[in-house]
Amino acid sequence: MESDSTAPALSDALAELIENYHELNASTIDELHNEPSPLEFMHYVALNRPFVVRGATSRWTATRKWNAAYLREIMRGQMVNVAITPLGNADSPVQITSGDREDTLFVKPLEVQEAFEDVLEYISKQELEQRDGEIKYAQTQNDNLRGEYTPLASDVQDIPWVRIALEKDPEAINFWLGNSRSVTALHKDNFENIYCQVIGQKHFVLMPPIEMPCVREKELPGATYAQNPESGKLEIKLDEESNTVPFPTWDPDVPERSTTAFSKLSRPLRVTLNAGDMLYLPAMWYHKVSQSCSDEGLCCAVNYWYDMEFAGSFHSLCAFERSAALQIS
Amino acid sequence: MESDSTAPALSDALAELIENYHELNASTIDELHNEPSPLEFMHYVALNRPFVVRGATSRWTATRKWNAAYLREIMRGQMVNVAITPLGNADSPVQITSGDREDTLFVKPLEVQEAFEDVLEYISKQELEQRDGEIKYAQTQNDNLRGEYTPLASDVQDIPWVRIALEKDPEAINFWLGNSRSVTALHKDNFENIYCQVIGQKHFVLMPPIEMPCVREKELPGATYAQNPESGKLEIKLDEESNTVPFPTWDPDVPERSTTAFSKLSRPLRVTLNAGDMLYLPAMWYHKVSQSCSDEGLCCAVNYWYDMEFAGSFHSLCAFERSAALQIS
Repeated sequence: MESDSTAPALSDALAELIENYHELNASTIDELHNEPSPLEFMHYVALNRPFVVRGATSRWTATRKWNAAYLREIMRGQMVNVAITPLGNADSPVQITSGDREDTLFVKPLEVQEAFEDVLEYISKQELEQRDGEIKYAQTQNDNLRGEYTPLASDVQDIPWVRIALEKDPEAINFWLGNSRSVTALHKDNFENIYCQVIGQKHFVLMPPIEMPCVREKELPGATYAQNPESGKLEIKLDEESNTVPFPTWDPDVPERSTTAFSKLSRPLRVTLNAGDMLYLPAMWYHKVSQSCSDEGLCCAVNYWYDMEFAGSFHSLCAFERSAALQIS
Repeated sequence: MESDSTAPALSDALAELIENYHELNASTIDELHNEPSPLEFMHYVALNRPFVVRGATSRWTATRKWNAAYLREIMRGQMVNVAITPLGNADSPVQITSGDREDTLFVKPLEVQEAFEDVLEYISKQELEQRDGEIKYAQTQNDNLRGEYTPLASDVQDIPWVRIALEKDPEAINFWLGNSRSVTALHKDNFENIYCQVIGQKHFVLMPPIEMPCVREKELPGATYAQNPESGKLEIKLDEESNTVPFPTWDPDVPERSTTAFSKLSRPLRVTLNAGDMLYLPAMWYHKVSQSCSDEGLCCAVNYWYDMEFAGSFHSLCAFERSAALQIS
C-alpha cells in the first residue's frame, strides 16, 4: 500500500473516479411528472443530480401568455441590455490566429442598451427570415427579471419546494430571450439552478462536476467584442487588464478536438426542455445550451439561481480533484 | 496552469483540501435540543456533518428502565456473544515484537457465548471493584438487538425522521454493553449511524472522511485473540488466510505517534453522550469511542445503522482522495 507499485498513478486514480461515478449513477436524467416535495428535492441536491419536471410551469402566466405581442406590449418603452456577437458565441472560447500563432481567448459579447421592442423584432425576424448579421441575445444573468424586466416579473412564480428545501430565496432570477443562432458554451456556475422554459425549446448537454478532467480547462486571456469604428464590424479586443479566465475548451459536440486523456470517459447527458418544462441543474454541473424557436422565431426562458452550499465536503473535494487534474494536464 | 510550476504538488493539494474543509465547516458539533424534521435531518446528511440531540430518547422505555436488575430479569437465560480481549481492544491495531522485528496487526477479539447474566455481572464487578483480568464487551454489531437481545427490542423506538428522510429502515440495530476498560479504536463505517446512549456515557472523537490522509492508513495483517490451552492466557494468533485489513494507525489521543505529513492538520471533534442523548454520526466519519459507567458499573448503548448512499459523487470523490493519499504515503 505504501509503494509506488501498488498505488495507482494519479491519472489512473482520476480515470477510476470518473468510471466509478458512472457505475454508481444513472446514465439518464430523471423525469418527474409532478413537482417534488422539499424533501424529495433535497435528495437530488444531496446527490448533486439533475432532474426534469415536465409541464411544471404550464399554469404560470408566463407560460400561458408570453408571446411576441404580449412581451412587446408589457415591455413597451423599456431599454434593455443585449449581448451582440458575430456567431452567437457570448462568453465563449474563440480561437484566433495572429501570424503563425494560434491563441484561444475567452471572448465576452459587445453589450449595448436597446429598446426591448427592437431587440424582440430583430431576434424574431433573423430567425424567421433566415437573415445573416450579428446575433443578439438578451442574457444578462444579473437578476434582470427583477431589474430591466420588472414588468414581466409577476408572470412567474415562487418555487416553494426549492425555497423550503434550501431555506433561501433565489439570489437571481434571469430572463433569457434569443433565437437559434445563439449557443451557450460549456461552462459551470456555483449556483443551484432551476431552469424554466417559457417559449421554444432549450437543448442541454450536461456533465457532472467530477468530469472536470475531461473538459480541458485552460487559462484563457479575456477579450471582448467591439465595433470597429470605421467598418462597423465586430472585432475581438484583448482586455486591458491582463486577466485570464479558467474555462473548458473541450466541446462535447465536437469530442475529437481539444481533448484530454480523460475526455473519452465523459458521458454527457442530453435533455430538451419544452415550454412549461423545468430543469434542476445542480451546482457546478457543466452545461452547454442551444435553442430552438417557437413559430414566432423566439426562444425565451427564466432561470432561478440559488447560492450553493460551500460547507460539507463536496466543494472542497471538487477543488481537490481540479488541483490534481491540473497537475497532469 | 499546465506547467508543474503553477500546479501545486499533490501533497500541497491534499493539505489544501483539509484546510479548505476546515475553513468552510464549523469546528464544533451542532447541539440540537429537539429532534429534527426529516428535511432538517437531510440537510445534515447532504453535508455529511454530525449533530447531537440532547435528551432525544429520554422518554424511551430503554432510557427510563434499563439498569442491572431490569436487564438481568428480561434477559434471564439468554446466551449472548461476548468479545474478550486483554486490554479492551477489540478490532484494533496492536504492535507486536518478534525478535528485532516490529509489526502492527489488526487484532479481533476472542468471541465466546456466555449467559447474559454472567456477562453483566463480570462487566459490572470489574468496573466497581477495579478488578484486573480480561475485558468483556458485548458488541457484535450484527443487528443483535433484533437477534440475541430480542427481549429488549421493544424498549427502543423507531426513529421516524430518519426513516422518512432516508426512505429506508435500519439495516442493523446494535446493542452494546461494556465498562470503562473497553475502547473502540479509530475506524469508519459505510453506514449512516444514529447512536443512542442508554446507560453511562460515551466519549467520541470524530474526524471527517476528508481527513483520511491524517490517519496513516496501513494494510494490517489480520489476527485474532485466542486462549492458550495450557496457560489460559489470551494470545494473538495470525489468521490463517493471509488477508490484510486497511486500517488507521494514527490515534488522535496520541497525536505524536504514527503520524503522516497531514496528521497535524486534523481537527478532531469531541463530544460526550449522556444517557438519553443521540448522535448522528455521518457515513464514513472516523470515530474513536471510549466510555464511562453508571454507578452500577455499566455503559450501554443502542445504535442504528442505515445503508449509506453510494450514488452522487461523495463516495467516489472520497475514494479518489484515498487513492491520491496512498500514492504519497
